[in-house]
Amino acid sequence: MTIHHSLLKIEFTPDNIDLFSDQLNGLLPGDLVQLIESRELDEQQIIFDALSQTKSLNTFEYLPVWVQEDLIKDMPPKKVAVLLNALAPDDRTKLLENLHTEQKNLLIKYLSPEEKALTLKLLGYPEDSVGRLMTPDYIAVRMDWKVRQVLDYIRSKGWDSETINVVYAIDDYGKLIDDFRIRQILLAPLDSFVSDIADFKFTALNVDDKTETAINTFRKNDRVALPVIDAKDHLLGIVTLDDILQVSVESDTEDFQNVAGMSPLVEPYMETPFLTLMRKRAGWLTVLFFGEMLTASAMGYYEHEISKAVMLALFIPLIISSGGNSGSQASTLVIRAMALGEITLKDWWRIMRREIFSGLFLGIVLGTIGFFRVLTWGSFFNSYGEHYLMVSFTIFFTLIGVVMWGSLIGALLPLLLKRLGFDPAVSSAPFVATIVDVTGLVIYFSIASTVLRGTLL
Amino acid sequence: MTIHHSLLKIEFTPDNIDLFSDQLNGLLPGDLVQLIESRELDEQQIIFDALSQTKSLNTFEYLPVWVQEDLIKDMPPKKVAVLLNALAPDDRTKLLENLHTEQKNLLIKYLSPEEKALTLKLLGYPEDSVGRLMTPDYIAVRMDWKVRQVLDYIRSKGWDSETINVVYAIDDYGKLIDDFRIRQILLAPLDSFVSDIADFKFTALNVDDKTETAINTFRKNDRVALPVIDAKDHLLGIVTLDDILQVSVESDTEDFQNVAGMSPLVEPYMETPFLTLMRKRAGWLTVLFFGEMLTASAMGYYEHEISKAVMLALFIPLIISSGGNSGSQASTLVIRAMALGEITLKDWWRIMRREIFSGLFLGIVLGTIGFFRVLTWGSFFNSYGEHYLMVSFTIFFTLIGVVMWGSLIGALLPLLLKRLGFDPAVSSAPFVATIVDVTGLVIYFSIASTVLRGTLL
Repeated sequence: MTIHHSLLKIEFTPDNIDLFSDQLNGLLPGDLVQLIESRELDEQQIIFDALSQTKSLNTFEYLPVWVQEDLIKDMPPKKVAVLLNALAPDDRTKLLENLHTEQKNLLIKYLSPEEKALTLKLLGYPEDSVGRLMTPDYIAVRMDWKVRQVLDYIRSKGWDSETINVVYAIDDYGKLIDDFRIRQILLAPLDSFVSDIADFKFTALNVDDKTETAINTFRKNDRVALPVIDAKDHLLGIVTLDDILQVSVESDTEDFQNVAGMSPLVEPYMETPFLTLMRKRAGWLTVLFFGEMLTASAMGYYEHEISKAVMLALFIPLIISSGGNSGSQASTLVIRAMALGEITLKDWWRIMRREIFSGLFLGIVLGTIGFFRVLTWGSFFNSYGEHYLMVSFTIFFTLIGVVMWGSLIGALLPLLLKRLGFDPAVSSAPFVATIVDVTGLVIYFSIASTVLRGTLL
Repeated sequence: MTIHHSLLKIEFTPDNIDLFSDQLNGLLPGDLVQLIESRELDEQQIIFDALSQTKSLNTFEYLPVWVQEDLIKDMPPKKVAVLLNALAPDDRTKLLENLHTEQKNLLIKYLSPEEKALTLKLLGYPEDSVGRLMTPDYIAVRMDWKVRQVLDYIRSKGWDSETINVVYAIDDYGKLIDDFRIRQILLAPLDSFVSDIADFKFTALNVDDKTETAINTFRKNDRVALPVIDAKDHLLGIVTLDDILQVSVESDTEDFQNVAGMSPLVEPYMETPFLTLMRKRAGWLTVLFFGEMLTASAMGYYEHEISKAVMLALFIPLIISSGGNSGSQASTLVIRAMALGEITLKDWWRIMRREIFSGLFLGIVLGTIGFFRVLTWGSFFNSYGEHYLMVSFTIFFTLIGVVMWGSLIGALLPLLLKRLGFDPAVSSAPFVATIVDVTGLVIYFSIASTVLRGTLL
């Protein structure tokens, strides 16, 4: 077996394992991560085994969770134990929370008593909560220390801390009193006291906060880490910005996939096993298909009208897709704005009003185009018989109705799902489109029956 | 006028402006940002005017760009000049780049000669490039300095630096040699040399890199800032993680809105003026509508078949929506994976193969359900005449064809757009659905003509 990669000057062969190893140990963790990520599992194992212990610990930490999972599957328990114990508590939580209970419990046994207690505690916080993201490795100082003392303390104890870009001041009871960027410490005279640079204010996350809240708090505060406290202000841990960036990208990917009408993938698209991909896609597609079957039933109800005026069938795709498209715009706008915390449930009436007017406006635009399309073809090519003017009006009113209805449903559905405690992103564009398809047909044929009564129908 | 907000204990009235002011100056910048963001413009102005100069400078920096723009519109030029000159170079670029040329040039005139030169340089980098995000305020040290000297240097010069979480080592020609996290400096003995802790390696962004590349580099490297270099390794500036988080969220929002078939909004959904919102939505809706009008033409071509077998019309929405839904899954998966750098254009054949098999699998699933739906209704309710078995087969084969076709187009279109230099996210789900609607009808009626020839048609 040979391993090719632009980063590798020396190729792997069973004879030159030492040279191969040296070259790998000379790479930066970031490059190693990229190299390992791009390989199949068997090559990943060879590369990872060739790393020195320090390098393997440094690299493992930055590998995506699904690669970590694959790697530890066939690793000797002793090596897994070393890796797991060395992993930062927050990274460990991330790895363990995705595993099956059995495997998770097995791995937890490998942990030292201390790390075990900590891990069980972190895993005890609800999924998607700040507790699951935090690490208890931070630097806490006291108000009566001098800046010089703080720097000495960091020099001696800072090795364990996840970040030393932020320093916290706590009182005798472990309550958070203030947070400092390291710049405040570094810029202060060595003989000043911590209390001299304190403003006794801080921005913190609550341990029960949703991940989404954490992302938005980071967006609003220019911090590289935020402290996590309980209801009584006790400092429990910190969450760092790089973890938040990762979570933010992951949660956006989930939303994208939800909005496209499928269950979110855990692994990247190309890494996801085919059958898993099919399961995630077929589930929603089938649900949507069953919903869409109602269109056949709805249209069966109007079969008589269609047989009398076949041309009415010609506009069905045009009409239902217009409703679906405007609905998909409205739902995506509302889903995204909710995810960013720009709107909340109590804005529902402002949102509805906005979408009713939007739907009316957009419906008139499309309705007018549709009106002239039918009028033109009707008068020049005689495509739609003698009553083409009435058909034009049918299309005009239907489009206004369907686009308004689509926008309204598109905006309402995510709000409703949120209200019921579901993820609003599940009210995907295809989901909205399906609802609007069925009801859009009813709108179309009702208007047609009214407008064309006595002429075509 | 009174201003209500949970953060405000003292309400604004024209008489108590001093008390109101004191209370505002006591708030954290993060809270002030939240307060100002939630207000209408007239209240924003009152609040902002009530801030002390230092507080207003600190707060302005963190306000969203659209709020910054609104605020400076009616501000005395002198005050605007102070704000602009105090703004970090990268934040200034962000504010200016969205303005009309005229207003931009006016504001640039307010800048001091130094800041002006800098700003013009940064605005000279292409949009969406790393150059537009960077700030030249960083800390650079030399290899022969002692750690103590570095700390003293930071204490004296660090005030101007955007971040002191990272320190860079450069040579006599300004070339980047190494990067240090501040932890490396803080943990090192005071009398050691910078070269003692150096590994002479660094991860850097190129000034011409796309923003997308920067986001993915940050995701892979656990850094709070990355240096920006030119082709010859000269250190030009830095990009910080908090800016990247913001850009990442913004670019995801753009992708969401593109994928939903509309032009991206600059401001949040509820802040966007109604007519702007309509322009952004109506444009794409109209394009899609014109595309969708081809369905009417395509169906006009089969009007004869429909009049002979009206029931064929009943399944049209079911069939075209299945193609659209599977296409929307495929396109969203590919768009997102490209945005995250998981796949590139050279993977096109692997992607195609994956989607052809996916389409086949999903088509068989939906086709089978559709087959039994028609068979059941046909045999029990006699809904579809004597030839219902042949109709069932028509639906079965059509669904396989349409779902495969939808998946293929959905995957191909983003790749094609990327290849042609366009944003792949523009190949929105509705766009794919429209193409698939038109071609899906052709597939349907072609299969129907073949299968039902001699019986129904």
